[in-house]
Amino acid sequence: MKIAVLGTGMVGNTLATKLVQLGHQIMVGSRTANSSAGQEWLRSVGGKGQIGTFADTAAFGEIVLDCTNGANSIEALRQAGAANLRGKVLIQVGNPLDFSKGMPPTLTVCNTDSLGEQTQHEFPDVRVVKALNTVNCDVMVNPSSVPGEHELLICGNDAGAKAQVAGWLSEWFGWKPESIIDLGDISNSRGTEMFLALWVRLWGKFGTPHFNIHFARGK
Amino acid sequence: MKIAVLGTGMVGNTLATKLVQLGHQIMVGSRTANSSAGQEWLRSVGGKGQIGTFADTAAFGEIVLDCTNGANSIEALRQAGAANLRGKVLIQVGNPLDFSKGMPPTLTVCNTDSLGEQTQHEFPDVRVVKALNTVNCDVMVNPSSVPGEHELLICGNDAGAKAQVAGWLSEWFGWKPESIIDLGDISNSRGTEMFLALWVRLWGKFGTPHFNIHFARGK
Repeated sequence: MKIAVLGTGMVGNTLATKLVQLGHQIMVGSRTANSSAGQEWLRSVGGKGQIGTFADTAAFGEIVLDCTNGANSIEALRQAGAANLRGKVLIQVGNPLDFSKGMPPTLTVCNTDSLGEQTQHEFPDVRVVKALNTVNCDVMVNPSSVPGEHELLICGNDAGAKAQVAGWLSEWFGWKPESIIDLGDISNSRGTEMFLALWVRLWGKFGTPHFNIHFARGK
Repeated sequence: MKIAVLGTGMVGNTLATKLVQLGHQIMVGSRTANSSAGQEWLRSVGGKGQIGTFADTAAFGEIVLDCTNGANSIEALRQAGAANLRGKVLIQVGNPLDFSKGMPPTLTVCNTDSLGEQTQHEFPDVRVVKALNTVNCDVMVNPSSVPGEHELLICGNDAGAKAQVAGWLSEWFGWKPESIIDLGDISNSRGTEMFLALWVRLWGKFGTPHFNIHFARGK
Protein backbone atom coordinates (compact mmCIF):
# COMPACT_ATOMS: atom_id res chain seq x y z
CA MET A 1 0.00 0.00 0.00
CA LYS A 2 1.17 3.53 -0.79
CA ILE A 3 1.18 5.42 2.48
CA ALA A 4 1.98 9.10 3.00
CA VAL A 5 3.58 10.00 6.31
CA LEU A 6 3.51 13.75 6.93
CA GLY A 7 6.11 14.89 9.44
CA THR A 8 9.72 13.91 10.10
CA GLY A 9 9.64 14.06 13.88
CA MET A 10 9.93 11.06 16.15
CA VAL A 11 6.32 10.00 15.59
CA GLY A 12 6.51 10.16 11.79
CA ASN A 13 9.85 8.37 11.74
CA THR A 14 8.67 5.58 14.01
CA LEU A 15 5.48 4.92 12.04
CA ALA A 16 7.20 5.24 8.66
CA THR A 17 9.98 2.85 9.65
CA LYS A 18 7.54 0.23 10.94
CA LEU A 19 5.48 0.49 7.74
CA VAL A 20 8.60 0.09 5.58
CA GLN A 21 9.47 -3.02 7.59
CA LEU A 22 5.99 -4.35 6.81
CA GLY A 23 6.68 -3.95 3.09
CA HIS A 24 4.56 -0.87 2.35
CA GLN A 25 5.57 1.87 -0.08
CA ILE A 26 6.22 4.88 2.10
CA MET A 27 6.86 8.53 1.33
CA VAL A 28 7.73 10.84 4.20
CA GLY A 29 6.90 14.51 3.75
CA SER A 30 8.22 17.71 5.22
CA ARG A 31 8.21 21.41 4.35
CA THR A 32 11.08 21.01 1.89
CA ALA A 33 11.63 18.24 -0.65
CA ASN A 34 15.03 17.23 0.66
CA SER A 35 15.03 18.03 4.35
CA SER A 36 17.93 16.78 6.43
CA ALA A 37 15.49 15.01 8.76
CA GLY A 38 13.93 13.28 5.76
CA GLN A 39 17.33 12.24 4.40
CA GLU A 40 18.34 10.91 7.78
CA TRP A 41 15.19 8.81 7.98
CA LEU A 42 15.76 7.49 4.45
CA ARG A 43 19.28 6.40 5.37
CA SER A 44 17.96 4.73 8.53
CA VAL A 45 15.72 2.46 6.45
CA GLY A 46 18.44 1.68 3.92
CA GLY A 47 16.84 3.80 1.23
CA LYS A 48 13.66 1.71 1.19
CA GLY A 49 11.30 4.68 0.95
CA GLN A 50 10.90 8.10 -0.55
CA ILE A 51 10.93 11.64 0.78
CA GLY A 52 9.31 14.79 -0.57
CA THR A 53 7.37 17.91 0.22
CA PHE A 54 4.09 17.70 2.10
CA ALA A 55 2.36 18.12 -1.28
CA ASP A 56 4.44 15.42 -3.05
CA THR A 57 3.75 13.08 -0.19
CA ALA A 58 0.01 13.71 0.06
CA ALA A 59 -0.30 13.18 -3.70
CA PHE A 60 1.65 9.90 -3.44
CA GLY A 61 -0.33 8.29 -0.64
CA GLU A 62 -3.49 6.25 -0.99
CA ILE A 63 -3.88 7.07 2.69
CA VAL A 64 -2.25 9.76 4.80
CA LEU A 65 -0.77 9.57 8.29
CA ASP A 66 -0.65 13.10 9.67
CA CYS A 67 2.27 13.00 12.10
CA THR A 68 2.98 16.71 11.94
CA ASN A 69 3.52 18.76 15.07
CA GLY A 70 -0.05 19.37 16.23
CA ALA A 71 0.52 23.04 16.89
CA ASN A 72 1.26 23.48 13.15
CA SER A 73 -0.79 20.69 11.57
CA ILE A 74 -3.33 22.89 9.84
CA GLU A 75 -0.61 24.90 8.12
CA ALA A 76 1.24 21.72 7.13
CA LEU A 77 -1.96 20.24 5.68
CA ARG A 78 -2.56 23.44 3.71
CA GLN A 79 0.89 22.93 2.23
CA ALA A 80 -0.02 19.31 1.51
CA GLY A 81 -2.94 20.71 -0.45
CA ALA A 82 -6.66 20.00 -0.30
CA ALA A 83 -6.61 18.58 -3.82
CA ASN A 84 -3.92 16.05 -2.89
CA LEU A 85 -5.84 14.98 0.21
CA ARG A 86 -9.36 14.90 -1.25
CA GLY A 87 -11.35 11.74 -0.55
CA LYS A 88 -8.50 10.07 1.31
CA VAL A 89 -8.48 8.67 4.81
CA LEU A 90 -6.24 10.87 6.97
CA ILE A 91 -5.18 9.42 10.30
CA GLN A 92 -4.34 12.35 12.53
CA VAL A 93 -1.85 11.35 15.19
CA GLY A 94 -0.71 14.73 16.53
CA ASN A 95 -1.93 16.77 19.47
CA PRO A 96 -2.00 20.59 19.56
CA LEU A 97 0.65 20.85 22.27
CA ASP A 98 2.38 24.13 23.01
CA PHE A 99 5.80 23.53 24.58
CA SER A 100 6.85 27.18 24.21
CA LYS A 101 6.34 27.92 27.90
CA GLY A 102 8.11 24.78 29.12
CA MET A 103 6.83 21.57 30.65
CA PRO A 104 4.18 20.47 31.00
CA PRO A 105 2.79 21.84 27.73
CA THR A 106 -0.60 23.46 27.30
CA LEU A 107 -2.94 22.92 24.34
CA THR A 108 -3.27 25.51 21.57
CA VAL A 109 -6.94 24.56 21.20
CA CYS A 110 -9.26 22.70 23.57
CA ASN A 111 -12.56 22.56 25.45
CA THR A 112 -14.85 24.13 22.84
CA ASP A 113 -12.90 22.95 19.79
CA SER A 114 -10.09 20.57 18.88
CA LEU A 115 -7.43 20.03 16.25
CA GLY A 116 -9.40 17.07 14.91
CA GLU A 117 -12.47 19.24 14.37
CA GLN A 118 -10.46 22.11 12.91
CA THR A 119 -8.88 19.70 10.44
CA GLN A 120 -12.20 18.18 9.37
CA HIS A 121 -13.70 21.67 9.08
CA GLU A 122 -10.84 23.01 6.96
CA PHE A 123 -10.75 19.89 4.74
CA PRO A 124 -14.37 18.74 4.47
CA ASP A 125 -13.57 16.27 1.66
CA VAL A 126 -10.96 14.43 3.72
CA ARG A 127 -12.00 11.44 5.83
CA VAL A 128 -10.32 12.47 9.09
CA VAL A 129 -9.86 9.81 11.76
CA LYS A 130 -8.22 10.89 15.01
CA ALA A 131 -6.23 7.95 16.31
CA LEU A 132 -3.03 6.92 18.10
CA ASN A 133 -2.77 10.37 19.75
CA THR A 134 -3.18 9.00 23.27
CA VAL A 135 -0.03 6.87 23.29
CA ASN A 136 3.70 7.30 22.76
CA CYS A 137 5.01 6.33 19.30
CA ASP A 138 6.80 3.23 20.58
CA VAL A 139 3.49 2.01 21.98
CA MET A 140 1.65 2.94 18.76
CA VAL A 141 3.65 0.44 16.72
CA ASN A 142 4.09 -2.16 19.44
CA PRO A 143 1.12 -2.22 21.80
CA SER A 144 2.22 -5.54 23.30
CA SER A 145 5.27 -3.76 24.73
CA VAL A 146 2.86 -2.54 27.41
CA PRO A 147 1.69 -5.57 29.41
CA GLY A 148 -1.94 -6.33 30.17
CA GLU A 149 -5.08 -4.95 28.65
CA HIS A 150 -5.10 -1.36 27.43
CA GLU A 151 -7.08 0.54 24.85
CA LEU A 152 -6.84 2.93 21.95
CA LEU A 153 -9.43 5.65 21.36
CA ILE A 154 -10.43 6.68 17.84
CA CYS A 155 -13.05 9.05 16.47
CA GLY A 156 -14.19 10.55 13.20
CA ASN A 157 -17.27 11.38 11.16
CA ASP A 158 -16.87 8.61 8.55
CA ALA A 159 -17.82 5.16 9.86
CA GLY A 160 -16.25 3.41 6.87
CA ALA A 161 -12.97 5.25 7.36
CA LYS A 162 -12.92 4.37 11.06
CA ALA A 163 -13.51 0.71 10.29
CA GLN A 164 -10.63 0.76 7.79
CA VAL A 165 -8.34 2.49 10.26
CA ALA A 166 -9.18 0.01 13.01
CA GLY A 167 -8.37 -2.80 10.60
CA TRP A 168 -5.03 -1.27 9.66
CA LEU A 169 -4.06 -0.63 13.27
CA SER A 170 -4.65 -4.30 13.97
CA GLU A 171 -2.91 -5.52 10.83
CA TRP A 172 0.10 -3.18 10.98
CA PHE A 173 0.78 -2.85 14.68
CA GLY A 174 -1.13 -5.60 16.45
CA TRP A 175 -3.81 -3.56 18.20
CA LYS A 176 -6.52 -6.05 19.17
CA PRO A 177 -9.85 -5.11 17.54
CA GLU A 178 -11.59 -5.28 20.93
CA SER A 179 -9.07 -2.79 22.33
CA ILE A 180 -9.96 -0.08 19.81
CA ILE A 181 -12.77 2.10 21.18
CA ASP A 182 -14.69 4.22 18.67
CA LEU A 183 -15.88 7.28 20.60
CA GLY A 184 -18.06 8.62 17.80
CA ASP A 185 -17.76 11.70 15.61
CA ILE A 186 -14.73 13.95 15.29
CA SER A 187 -15.90 16.29 18.09
CA ASN A 188 -14.72 13.56 20.45
CA SER A 189 -11.19 14.69 19.60
CA ARG A 190 -11.78 17.20 22.39
CA GLY A 191 -11.80 14.29 24.81
CA THR A 192 -8.75 12.48 23.46
CA GLU A 193 -6.68 15.64 22.91
CA MET A 194 -7.51 17.04 26.37
CA PHE A 195 -6.43 13.71 27.87
CA LEU A 196 -2.93 14.86 26.92
CA ALA A 197 -3.01 17.31 29.84
CA LEU A 198 -3.09 14.26 32.07
CA TRP A 199 -0.84 12.15 29.86
CA VAL A 200 2.10 14.56 29.99
CA ARG A 201 1.88 14.65 33.80
CA LEU A 202 1.75 10.87 34.04
CA TRP A 203 4.80 10.73 31.76
CA GLY A 204 6.60 12.92 34.30
CA LYS A 205 5.30 10.88 37.25
CA PHE A 206 6.04 7.44 35.79
CA GLY A 207 9.38 8.53 34.30
CA THR A 208 8.55 6.78 31.04
CA PRO A 209 6.20 7.43 28.12
CA HIS A 210 5.64 3.69 27.76
CA PHE A 211 2.26 3.34 29.40
CA ASN A 212 -1.35 3.28 28.31
CA ILE A 213 -4.80 3.47 29.78
CA HIS A 214 -7.15 0.59 30.40
CA PHE A 215 -10.77 1.17 31.27
CA ALA A 216 -11.90 -1.10 34.06
CA ARG A 217 -15.67 -1.38 33.87
CA GLY A 218 -18.29 -2.12 36.49
CA LYS A 219 -22.02 -2.51 35.89
CA MET B 1 -14.27 12.32 63.23
CA LYS B 2 -16.18 15.54 62.53
CA ILE B 3 -16.41 15.85 58.76
CA ALA B 4 -17.95 18.72 56.81
CA VAL B 5 -19.55 17.79 53.49
CA LEU B 6 -20.24 20.86 51.37
CA GLY B 7 -22.92 20.27 48.75
CA THR B 8 -26.20 18.37 48.72
CA GLY B 9 -25.97 16.95 45.22
CA MET B 10 -25.51 13.29 44.41
CA VAL B 11 -21.79 13.35 45.21
CA GLY B 12 -22.18 15.03 48.58
CA ASN B 13 -25.08 12.75 49.53
CA THR B 14 -23.22 9.60 48.58
CA LEU B 15 -20.06 10.51 50.49
CA ALA B 16 -21.98 11.83 53.53
CA THR B 17 -24.12 8.70 53.74
CA LYS B 18 -21.13 6.39 53.54
CA LEU B 19 -19.32 8.38 56.25
CA VAL B 20 -22.39 8.27 58.52
CA GLN B 21 -22.48 4.49 58.04
CA LEU B 22 -18.84 4.38 59.12
CA GLY B 23 -19.76 6.14 62.36
CA HIS B 24 -18.39 9.61 61.67
CA GLN B 25 -20.08 12.82 62.77
CA ILE B 26 -21.25 14.44 59.56
CA MET B 27 -22.67 17.86 58.77
CA VAL B 28 -23.89 18.53 55.26
CA GLY B 29 -23.86 22.13 54.11
CA SER B 30 -25.78 24.07 51.51
CA ARG B 31 -26.59 27.70 50.74
CA THR B 32 -29.40 27.76 53.28
CA ALA B 33 -29.49 26.25 56.77
CA ASN B 34 -32.51 24.09 56.16
CA SER B 35 -32.51 23.26 52.47
CA SER B 36 -34.99 20.70 51.23
CA ALA B 37 -32.12 18.68 49.73
CA GLY B 38 -30.38 18.72 53.11
CA GLN B 39 -33.54 17.65 54.93
CA GLU B 40 -34.09 14.86 52.46
CA TRP B 41 -30.55 13.57 53.01
CA LEU B 42 -30.99 13.75 56.78
CA ARG B 43 -34.16 11.66 56.56
CA SER B 44 -32.38 9.14 54.33
CA VAL B 45 -29.79 8.49 57.07
CA GLY B 46 -32.39 8.26 59.82
CA GLY B 47 -31.43 11.61 61.29
CA LYS B 48 -27.87 10.45 62.05
CA GLY B 49 -26.22 13.67 60.95
CA GLN B 50 -26.62 17.41 60.86
CA ILE B 51 -27.33 19.98 58.19
CA GLY B 52 -26.49 23.67 58.02
CA THR B 53 -25.21 26.50 55.90
CA PHE B 54 -21.87 26.24 54.14
CA ALA B 55 -20.44 28.40 56.95
CA ASP B 56 -21.98 26.29 59.79
CA THR B 57 -20.67 23.17 58.13
CA ALA B 58 -17.15 24.43 57.46
CA ALA B 59 -16.92 25.58 61.09
CA PHE B 60 -18.12 22.16 62.30
CA GLY B 61 -15.70 19.99 60.34
CA GLU B 62 -12.20 19.00 61.35
CA ILE B 63 -11.81 18.28 57.66
CA VAL B 64 -13.88 19.45 54.71
CA LEU B 65 -15.12 17.52 51.68
CA ASP B 66 -15.91 20.04 48.97
CA CYS B 67 -18.64 18.32 46.95
CA THR B 68 -20.13 21.52 45.57
CA ASN B 69 -20.94 21.92 41.90
CA GLY B 70 -17.53 22.72 40.44
CA ALA B 71 -18.84 25.57 38.33
CA ASN B 72 -19.84 27.35 41.57
CA SER B 73 -17.31 25.99 44.08
CA ILE B 74 -15.36 29.20 44.62
CA GLU B 75 -18.53 31.10 45.46
CA ALA B 76 -19.71 28.30 47.78
CA LEU B 77 -16.34 28.29 49.55
CA ARG B 78 -16.53 32.07 49.99
CA GLN B 79 -19.86 31.50 51.71
CA ALA B 80 -18.24 28.78 53.82
CA GLY B 81 -15.78 31.45 54.90
CA ALA B 82 -11.99 31.57 54.86
CA ALA B 83 -11.90 31.76 58.67
CA ASN B 84 -13.94 28.54 59.00
CA LEU B 85 -11.70 26.73 56.52
CA ARG B 86 -8.32 28.00 57.73
CA GLY B 87 -5.66 25.35 58.31
CA LYS B 88 -8.00 22.49 57.45
CA VAL B 89 -7.58 19.79 54.86
CA LEU B 90 -10.10 20.38 52.08
CA ILE B 91 -10.69 17.47 49.71
CA GLN B 92 -12.03 18.97 46.51
CA VAL B 93 -14.11 16.44 44.62
CA GLY B 94 -15.88 18.64 42.06
CA ASN B 95 -14.99 19.49 38.49
CA PRO B 96 -15.72 22.84 36.82
CA LEU B 97 -18.22 21.39 34.36
CA ASP B 98 -20.58 23.62 32.41
CA PHE B 99 -23.71 21.71 31.40
CA SER B 100 -25.55 24.87 30.27
CA LYS B 101 -25.02 24.10 26.57
CA GLY B 102 -26.02 20.44 26.86
CA MET B 103 -24.04 17.23 26.77
CA PRO B 104 -21.18 16.68 26.76
CA PRO B 105 -20.29 19.55 29.10
CA THR B 106 -17.31 21.86 28.67
CA LEU B 107 -15.06 23.11 31.46
CA THR B 108 -15.41 26.62 32.88
CA VAL B 109 -11.65 26.72 33.45
CA CYS B 110 -8.88 24.58 31.95
CA ASN B 111 -5.55 24.38 30.15
CA THR B 112 -3.76 27.35 31.77
CA ASP B 113 -5.56 27.14 35.13
CA SER B 114 -7.86 24.82 37.08
CA LEU B 115 -10.45 24.87 39.81
CA GLY B 116 -7.98 23.23 42.15
CA GLU B 117 -5.47 26.02 41.61
CA GLN B 118 -8.11 28.74 41.83
CA THR B 119 -9.25 27.29 45.14
CA GLN B 120 -5.74 27.11 46.60
CA HIS B 121 -5.03 30.64 45.34
CA GLU B 122 -8.20 32.10 46.85
CA PHE B 123 -7.74 30.24 50.14
CA PRO B 124 -3.96 30.10 50.72
CA ASP B 125 -4.36 28.91 54.33
CA VAL B 126 -6.42 25.88 53.35
CA ARG B 127 -4.67 22.57 52.62
CA VAL B 128 -6.38 21.78 49.32
CA VAL B 129 -6.14 18.22 48.02
CA LYS B 130 -7.80 17.47 44.69
CA ALA B 131 -9.06 13.90 44.82
CA LEU B 132 -11.89 11.57 43.77
CA ASN B 133 -12.79 13.89 40.85
CA THR B 134 -11.94 11.30 38.20
CA VAL B 135 -14.56 8.74 39.22
CA ASN B 136 -18.32 8.56 39.70
CA CYS B 137 -19.55 8.84 43.30
CA ASP B 138 -20.58 5.18 43.51
CA VAL B 139 -17.02 4.23 42.59
CA MET B 140 -15.58 6.79 45.04
CA VAL B 141 -17.10 5.00 48.04
CA ASN B 142 -16.84 1.46 46.67
CA PRO B 143 -13.83 1.07 44.40
CA SER B 144 -14.13 -2.72 44.48
CA SER B 145 -17.41 -2.39 42.55
CA VAL B 146 -15.19 -1.93 39.51
CA PRO B 147 -13.32 -5.17 38.90
CA GLY B 148 -9.57 -5.39 38.37
CA GLU B 149 -6.87 -2.88 39.04
CA HIS B 150 -7.67 0.80 38.64
CA GLU B 151 -6.25 3.98 40.08
CA LEU B 152 -7.12 7.26 41.75
CA LEU B 153 -5.20 10.46 41.04
CA ILE B 154 -4.61 13.03 43.75
CA CYS B 155 -2.62 16.26 43.91
CA GLY B 156 -1.99 19.19 46.21
CA ASN B 157 0.74 21.42 47.56
CA ASP B 158 0.81 19.98 51.10
CA ALA B 159 2.53 16.59 51.32
CA GLY B 160 1.22 15.94 54.81
CA ALA B 161 -2.35 16.66 53.77
CA LYS B 162 -2.03 14.34 50.78
CA ALA B 163 -0.72 11.55 52.98
CA GLN B 164 -3.66 12.02 55.35
CA VAL B 165 -6.15 12.04 52.48
CA ALA B 166 -4.65 8.89 50.97
CA GLY B 167 -4.97 7.22 54.37
CA TRP B 168 -8.60 8.27 54.76
CA LEU B 169 -9.51 7.12 51.25
CA SER B 170 -8.12 3.70 52.12
CA GLU B 171 -9.72 3.57 55.54
CA TRP B 172 -13.13 4.92 54.58
CA PHE B 173 -13.70 3.54 51.11
CA GLY B 174 -11.15 0.78 50.57
CA TRP B 175 -8.89 2.43 48.01
CA LYS B 176 -5.68 0.41 48.02
CA PRO B 177 -2.70 2.61 48.95
CA GLU B 178 -0.81 1.42 45.87
CA SER B 179 -3.74 2.50 43.69
CA ILE B 180 -3.54 6.13 44.80
CA ILE B 181 -1.21 8.10 42.52
CA ASP B 182 0.10 11.43 43.83
CA LEU B 183 0.71 13.58 40.74
CA GLY B 184 2.41 16.39 42.64
CA ASP B 185 1.37 19.96 43.36
CA ILE B 186 -2.07 21.46 42.86
CA SER B 187 -1.30 22.60 39.30
CA ASN B 188 -1.77 18.95 38.34
CA SER B 189 -5.49 19.57 38.82
CA ARG B 190 -5.32 20.74 35.21
CA GLY B 191 -4.58 17.17 34.21
CA THR B 192 -7.22 15.48 36.32
CA GLU B 193 -9.94 18.06 35.62
CA MET B 194 -9.26 18.05 31.85
CA PHE B 195 -9.56 14.25 31.92
CA LEU B 196 -13.25 14.92 32.46
CA ALA B 197 -13.56 15.90 28.80
CA LEU B 198 -12.73 12.29 28.02
CA TRP B 199 -14.58 10.85 31.03
CA VAL B 200 -17.96 12.31 30.04
CA ARG B 201 -17.58 10.87 26.53
CA LEU B 202 -16.65 7.44 27.88
CA TRP B 203 -19.70 7.62 30.13
CA GLY B 204 -21.81 8.11 27.01
CA LYS B 205 -19.97 5.37 25.12
CA PHE B 206 -20.04 2.77 27.90
CA GLY B 207 -23.59 3.65 28.97
CA THR B 208 -22.55 3.62 32.61
CA PRO B 209 -20.52 5.90 34.89
CA HIS B 210 -19.20 2.86 36.73
CA PHE B 211 -15.75 2.59 35.22
CA ASN B 212 -12.28 3.76 36.08
CA ILE B 213 -8.86 4.04 34.51
CA HIS B 214 -5.95 1.74 35.03
CA PHE B 215 -2.49 2.66 33.83
CA ALA B 216 -0.78 -0.26 32.17
CA ARG B 217 2.94 0.36 32.28
CA GLY B 218 5.80 -0.83 30.10
CA LYS B 219 9.49 -0.11 30.64
